[in-house]
Amino acid sequence: MITVDLDNQSTTPLYEQIYLHIKQEILIGRLKKGEKLPSTRSLSSHLQVSRNTIDMAYGQLLSEGYVDSLPQKGHYVSDINHMYLSPMASLVPDKHRTLNKPDTSKAVLPILYDFSPNAIDSSHFPINIWQKLMKHAFDQDTSSFLLGDNQGDYAFRLAIKHYLEQSRGVNCDICQIIVGAGADYLIQLLSQLLTPTDIIAMEDPSYTQANHIFKSMHLSTVAIPVDAQGMKVEQLQKTSANIAYVTPSHQFPLGSVMSIKRRLSLLQWAKEADNRYIIEDDHDSEFRYIGRPIPALQSLDTNQKVIYIGTFSRSIAPAIRVGYMVLPLPLNTLYQEKLSHYSSTVSRLDQTILTDFLRQGHFERHLNRMKKLYKVKHDTMLECLNGFGNLITVIGENAGLHLVVQVNLPVSEQTLLEKARKQGIRLYPLSPYFMNDTPTRRPAFLMGFANLEEDEIQKGLQTFLNLLTEYKP
Amino acid sequence: MITVDLDNQSTTPLYEQIYLHIKQEILIGRLKKGEKLPSTRSLSSHLQVSRNTIDMAYGQLLSEGYVDSLPQKGHYVSDINHMYLSPMASLVPDKHRTLNKPDTSKAVLPILYDFSPNAIDSSHFPINIWQKLMKHAFDQDTSSFLLGDNQGDYAFRLAIKHYLEQSRGVNCDICQIIVGAGADYLIQLLSQLLTPTDIIAMEDPSYTQANHIFKSMHLSTVAIPVDAQGMKVEQLQKTSANIAYVTPSHQFPLGSVMSIKRRLSLLQWAKEADNRYIIEDDHDSEFRYIGRPIPALQSLDTNQKVIYIGTFSRSIAPAIRVGYMVLPLPLNTLYQEKLSHYSSTVSRLDQTILTDFLRQGHFERHLNRMKKLYKVKHDTMLECLNGFGNLITVIGENAGLHLVVQVNLPVSEQTLLEKARKQGIRLYPLSPYFMNDTPTRRPAFLMGFANLEEDEIQKGLQTFLNLLTEYKP
Repeated sequence: MITVDLDNQSTTPLYEQIYLHIKQEILIGRLKKGEKLPSTRSLSSHLQVSRNTIDMAYGQLLSEGYVDSLPQKGHYVSDINHMYLSPMASLVPDKHRTLNKPDTSKAVLPILYDFSPNAIDSSHFPINIWQKLMKHAFDQDTSSFLLGDNQGDYAFRLAIKHYLEQSRGVNCDICQIIVGAGADYLIQLLSQLLTPTDIIAMEDPSYTQANHIFKSMHLSTVAIPVDAQGMKVEQLQKTSANIAYVTPSHQFPLGSVMSIKRRLSLLQWAKEADNRYIIEDDHDSEFRYIGRPIPALQSLDTNQKVIYIGTFSRSIAPAIRVGYMVLPLPLNTLYQEKLSHYSSTVSRLDQTILTDFLRQGHFERHLNRMKKLYKVKHDTMLECLNGFGNLITVIGENAGLHLVVQVNLPVSEQTLLEKARKQGIRLYPLSPYFMNDTPTRRPAFLMGFANLEEDEIQKGLQTFLNLLTEYKP
Repeated sequence: MITVDLDNQSTTPLYEQIYLHIKQEILIGRLKKGEKLPSTRSLSSHLQVSRNTIDMAYGQLLSEGYVDSLPQKGHYVSDINHMYLSPMASLVPDKHRTLNKPDTSKAVLPILYDFSPNAIDSSHFPINIWQKLMKHAFDQDTSSFLLGDNQGDYAFRLAIKHYLEQSRGVNCDICQIIVGAGADYLIQLLSQLLTPTDIIAMEDPSYTQANHIFKSMHLSTVAIPVDAQGMKVEQLQKTSANIAYVTPSHQFPLGSVMSIKRRLSLLQWAKEADNRYIIEDDHDSEFRYIGRPIPALQSLDTNQKVIYIGTFSRSIAPAIRVGYMVLPLPLNTLYQEKLSHYSSTVSRLDQTILTDFLRQGHFERHLNRMKKLYKVKHDTMLECLNGFGNLITVIGENAGLHLVVQVNLPVSEQTLLEKARKQGIRLYPLSPYFMNDTPTRRPAFLMGFANLEEDEIQKGLQTFLNLLTEYKP
């Protein structure tokens, strides 16, 4: 007979206490394979509980396979492989256990001026409008709780199509638009449409993250240098690459605009073979402080050769994780065949809110407001940097949320980085963005200004100037 | 001299009208390569606009590369490759253009009773709590606008860890948890940790979507039959598969629970080689109507062999697209090396809201409420199906949001599907879930009940019963 030390005061139900006890007895081998459990009647009278309680405990053991039930005969302990259970202590080497824990060993210097190129100014986000739209999205109907279209909701893609048409000159059908959780995800998806023999030409320097993703997806990449006009297409032509990944509206990180001549050469290059395509990463084309925005490369493409990728990370917030990809028709056909089974990665609620945000003109107003705010910060940066004279050269001004500052002094990026850090300035060196860096290149930094106030920009840059002056010959 | 038909009333600024006109002249070849543009002074006096306006128009042409600027000399038309621009008409075959457009050609019969296995009952979602938490998330600080931890916010992973520990018996460190936009995305991510020589054993029938994803990621799969105890591990042992994809708590779609014997054999199998792993898809383990929930297979694993995947799709809503994956330590080390560069795919705001939803006990209360509601629907289903006598056999009851109903009559799934559809009943056949179906298998359907009211279940099943009775011999 089985004796269980039942606790009537416990929050664990009686049946569960019985189940846990018997399970334990089986696991440690005290109840052996083939052994018959007491009948529910005899155990219920032994433990002074209802038969129903024993039935539930046995039912649970049965459903987990610890016991078998033979009709009209009763319950028997199953044949369990004890061998596996013996090493109860974890065999995991200790080195694995230390992963990813926050490092609290070092005292941290305060950061006063963070020139992060990834920051945005989120203090002007129209939270009230967003909340109103969310309330509206919940009120509409309950279908927003269900899984939507795999490519993204139709209304959302329609709103994106209108936006891309008007603001970027992008020509496409709604069916060519795929909504996804950020550019990284869309590049993963796109990689699945490519074949392992495809070779991707990357701008050098470039958005190195894309390079990492292609490699994780078992695709090869090759580096092509950029100059003030963008990727050097004549160098691309000398390689066996058949895909070109470019940032024509605003080269990342150098900020140049791809000239129309280069654009047309690139399109011509793509046209010359069926398997050639151009990936246009239109990452922060919204913010241009002089003249009109540069139309997307896609708008010039008459041969369905450009894959267009954009996100709301810069224009709304990096935290919302919503991007879109426009596939040229042949790749779209392939997508429908091969990948249309993937569920959407974007919350339906976010799609509904964003649709209204775009459709009701809030997005345009928000962009215009942010463009003005960023222009003031950008101009303050330029004005301060002007005072540096020929100690530095500014690259990639008039657009985006960062400048590149090249330092014309005999000092290394690493040294400046560390010196600046000690003064409370966080800088972001250019080196990590190169695939093939040149040892003779002068030190350079990406200097973002989006999340700094004007006086912070002034003070931060003054501190940086003082620091550079030390190295002046 | 260039003459532009300027419209002072237009909303298009004057500089843009001038820019567009000159660009057009260059594109159609009326202004030729090397040709000098008029000086800003002469054009401004000719067109009777300010010099600043001409400067802006020229600046735009310059930044897009349509003209070059020679210092002290002026602006010249660039060397543009006209060849590319000639076929202005789209060369895209028409067949591509018809993709993905809504089909409005057929008159659609109304669906009165949709037994979808993917539905949930969203009418009891605590919208007010969710909105309150969202407001709170916005109020906290603006860091929720920035990109968070690539693996998911620490606080969110901590809340998931507690939930998994308490409800599923899952043992893990926070560092082993990866948050992602749904199970599909997490399976894509996981696939990048595997190698092309890995072979994945799938339950047959199973969640076929996972099979599609592995194939899209260039991995091989093999089908292993399931019986009432889950995947037949002795058959798995005969294959060269080194990864097993299983749904032990509630086999999808058949609803069986993997017995403890099978669980241990499977863990033993995994232990026998370094490259063997088990993927545990714990898709709807929250809803069990008899006894306790079945603990996760991961809770029995003492050798770091189980990759655990779960989502909030069933427990909260499919639309929110949030899932989590627990990697065993060796794979976590590999993830940190190879894939830690991927940005999170889940909105930071959603993470913050969900963290509070879990931490403040709302999730548990919501689950308990839903479990009661679903149990009533489940019991109504069983009661009605009882009345079918031996016309049918019910499979996989007592858990989840659907039952499988096997029809013991000489009629095909397809015929029943169509007949039922004409009566307003939407059924979901079992066939698509098989990799290797047997021709002698009886027709069977997944019958979801989550989003039907009790009277709808009763009426829908009565209609179905009447339909089956026609085939009674």
